[in-house]
Amino acid sequence: MIYGHDPRTGETVGTALPETDGAGVDMIVSAAAAAGAAWRATPAAERAVALEAVADALSAHVDELWQLADQETALGEVRLRGEVARTAGQFRLFAQVIRDGGYLEAIIDHADPSLTPPRPDVRRMKHALQGVVAVFAASNFPFAFSVAGGDTASALAAGCPVVVKAHPGHPNTSERVAKIVREALPYPDLLGLVQGMQAGADLVQHPSVVAAGFTGSVAGGKAIQKLIDEREVPIPFYGELGSVNPVVVLPSAPVKEVATGFAASLTLGVGQFCTNPGLMFVPEGDELRKALVEAVEGTAGGPMLAERIRDGYLGGVERLGQLQLLAEGKPGQGSLAVTPKVFTADLETFASKLPEIGEECFGPASIVVTYRDVSDLRPVLEQLDGSLTATIHGTEPGEAGEVAEVLGKRAGRLIWNGWPTGVAVCWAMHHGGPWPAATTSYTSVGATAIGRWLAPTAYQDWPEELLPEELKDANPLSIPQRVDGRLQA
Amino acid sequence: MIYGHDPRTGETVGTALPETDGAGVDMIVSAAAAAGAAWRATPAAERAVALEAVADALSAHVDELWQLADQETALGEVRLRGEVARTAGQFRLFAQVIRDGGYLEAIIDHADPSLTPPRPDVRRMKHALQGVVAVFAASNFPFAFSVAGGDTASALAAGCPVVVKAHPGHPNTSERVAKIVREALPYPDLLGLVQGMQAGADLVQHPSVVAAGFTGSVAGGKAIQKLIDEREVPIPFYGELGSVNPVVVLPSAPVKEVATGFAASLTLGVGQFCTNPGLMFVPEGDELRKALVEAVEGTAGGPMLAERIRDGYLGGVERLGQLQLLAEGKPGQGSLAVTPKVFTADLETFASKLPEIGEECFGPASIVVTYRDVSDLRPVLEQLDGSLTATIHGTEPGEAGEVAEVLGKRAGRLIWNGWPTGVAVCWAMHHGGPWPAATTSYTSVGATAIGRWLAPTAYQDWPEELLPEELKDANPLSIPQRVDGRLQA
Repeated sequence: MIYGHDPRTGETVGTALPETDGAGVDMIVSAAAAAGAAWRATPAAERAVALEAVADALSAHVDELWQLADQETALGEVRLRGEVARTAGQFRLFAQVIRDGGYLEAIIDHADPSLTPPRPDVRRMKHALQGVVAVFAASNFPFAFSVAGGDTASALAAGCPVVVKAHPGHPNTSERVAKIVREALPYPDLLGLVQGMQAGADLVQHPSVVAAGFTGSVAGGKAIQKLIDEREVPIPFYGELGSVNPVVVLPSAPVKEVATGFAASLTLGVGQFCTNPGLMFVPEGDELRKALVEAVEGTAGGPMLAERIRDGYLGGVERLGQLQLLAEGKPGQGSLAVTPKVFTADLETFASKLPEIGEECFGPASIVVTYRDVSDLRPVLEQLDGSLTATIHGTEPGEAGEVAEVLGKRAGRLIWNGWPTGVAVCWAMHHGGPWPAATTSYTSVGATAIGRWLAPTAYQDWPEELLPEELKDANPLSIPQRVDGRLQA
Repeated sequence: MIYGHDPRTGETVGTALPETDGAGVDMIVSAAAAAGAAWRATPAAERAVALEAVADALSAHVDELWQLADQETALGEVRLRGEVARTAGQFRLFAQVIRDGGYLEAIIDHADPSLTPPRPDVRRMKHALQGVVAVFAASNFPFAFSVAGGDTASALAAGCPVVVKAHPGHPNTSERVAKIVREALPYPDLLGLVQGMQAGADLVQHPSVVAAGFTGSVAGGKAIQKLIDEREVPIPFYGELGSVNPVVVLPSAPVKEVATGFAASLTLGVGQFCTNPGLMFVPEGDELRKALVEAVEGTAGGPMLAERIRDGYLGGVERLGQLQLLAEGKPGQGSLAVTPKVFTADLETFASKLPEIGEECFGPASIVVTYRDVSDLRPVLEQLDGSLTATIHGTEPGEAGEVAEVLGKRAGRLIWNGWPTGVAVCWAMHHGGPWPAATTSYTSVGATAIGRWLAPTAYQDWPEELLPEELKDANPLSIPQRVDGRLQA
């Protein structure tokens, strides 16, 4: 049986939930596949309405949901209410995306008999993948990267049914969210939920599963990839695995704002963000150092989401302990509580301990690396693993040239004078990056995340009456089409 | 040493070429990576001019090139001249694609402080992958899917340097093409060439290689995937592996045209096309059967590209020999010559021998499966492996409904009243499909093939002076941008 645990007390909360066995996974995936056939055939305009109904249902249950999730995660009311709103917002964005239709990349090339050889009429658009999408929920976002998270919203929007493997950190929240979403969907079986580690393995190896989304650790991602490699027919694996999110503070940056912003971003949600600033390069100097010490000492820790995550943090901090401790926050309260810790080293010492010292330590820990001259940074930044984000602080963009160029190679999102925690859900967002930040070049947040669940089909000399509406010359759905080489919005 | 062989005589032709050793591969990849940095920074308009210079250079050398390739492949003047033209045309198409700029998917979301939380300014576009693209050349297209083929053209267009592993079927042609392309490029090292099986393995495992393209067999594709799985940092593998290309002839189809079209498509280029029609479902009846026998008996075989390919064909024909022989063409001439062969079975017999009988037999062999009623086809078509193409012949589209739907799930390109051989190079082409037709949902032919060599970057509150031109509000390059949710072409 699977139990939720209160990170503040360590006690079990909610109902004991059975692990889904092999027959159960098969039944749930098969039901999703069956519902998917009807969903796939549903016009985009109707799918959009259904996505908005899911958003409404989540918002309507926010009072109940935040409390349930708080018992299992201790993330608190403000954060969890905000996260439910964000989760509903993701469904609303994808309703817009599928109404717009640009994501289908409709292309029409009319026949050209004057060419050698003569060119037939060729039309192309993307369609939903033919099967079920498996989603592995994350620990740290019980709503926005979980049962009704961005992977689920984007896959449903594309036209795919989804089966989610719940995260053991919030099993009861997962069940409740699944029930709410299922009731709001025209075909409840479009969303299935399985519980337990073995159920996750069975899920990703099920023949009806055609793609998998995952947010978690490098080790977890490698384990799922290995299961996929054993499949007869391989499937794409969209994993977001790990990120240190380097920050470079230029000499022109304002000391005070950098110190307080850093401390706040580092300790938000007990540092349990994949975009947590785990590494910051600062110019040598007492003023910034003092400001950082003061800001970090003003923070407080808190309980982490689960025992395994807390143990991982303590292990990571021990590894960072080979560097000098710069400052620590106040210890948090609760049985799984940890203390924010910031370590420091000069550039040479840090570089000598790469690559190990550059690995992510999930939680409120970071390394402040001091440099003498901005021009010394390049060779060290080039050695960093891929990250979801890279940030520059400064008031003179001209100062950033070389650093910006190198960071652009190592991260999927570049931020100026901000902090990486907080990922805006919008058309332009990219939440991905070079390995191990992500396993592919796709994003898991924002409008273009829908591309993960699509594949193109070309139609050659295909009869008008059999063509999809999206590829007809009359363009009855008024979607963007590229016609004979020219994009028409 | 590596030698070219004349398929007509079995004799060696051209110069003996050394296999590229490990140090050689490293040197070539490193030179490509170095040239890539400058190429990547070259504006798209200038890259387009360079691509057109390559096209011009290939066209200018067509007299020499077709003769060289004919010695190594026996594909003949008409086909090889056409293939050089097509290869040049691919470079011209990609010049258009990068001038247009839509492939960058530029998106601008302006800041919105009215939202909770306030949304920063976020902009996103795609960039060339940061490193070298490895291309494994195909046996059956010495130009269009080889050193200067579609993978190379699309990767260079994207902004990536390329190192090609030559196919042993045409080593001298490969060297000559590489020299012509290198001389036409502003940085010759943007195209490297390696020879030999071990060199291919070293190439795909080189740390500077960031993606690989491949056209070949399922076994070959699996071998490369295995090498990639051993890498520390995984890379995307775009493979086009195998395809039977089912054709369904509806009762309304004209008998004579189907029979002659089939025989011509089957035996074109000694059947050495990945889009060869390896399986055709026809209504029972003597008239079509007689027409097919007559058409096939009117064909002639020819020498295949290499001994290994000839042996593979003979093995495949032996496997198909468990069915009844319907007709065969005249034997071809030359030491590697084979005979076209068409086998037949009724739907039940064919279905009983799946999946083995449904595997590709590379060369001029096919199976004609007879059915009683169109409605009997569905369960059998559903069991077929993924294909690059699926074709329907008929005069009444209404008759095709169910068949069209099922074939749409099993193939990347649907063709009406045509033949799958011949892949138009245009914006809308999709040359891919469900496994094993392709390893991903990307195409290897047509404008969208460029997407394989790109990854997005998001810029958050990024200073105007550091933004790429493509993401500036003034849109100085006049490319398509999606601004605040609205696509502007």
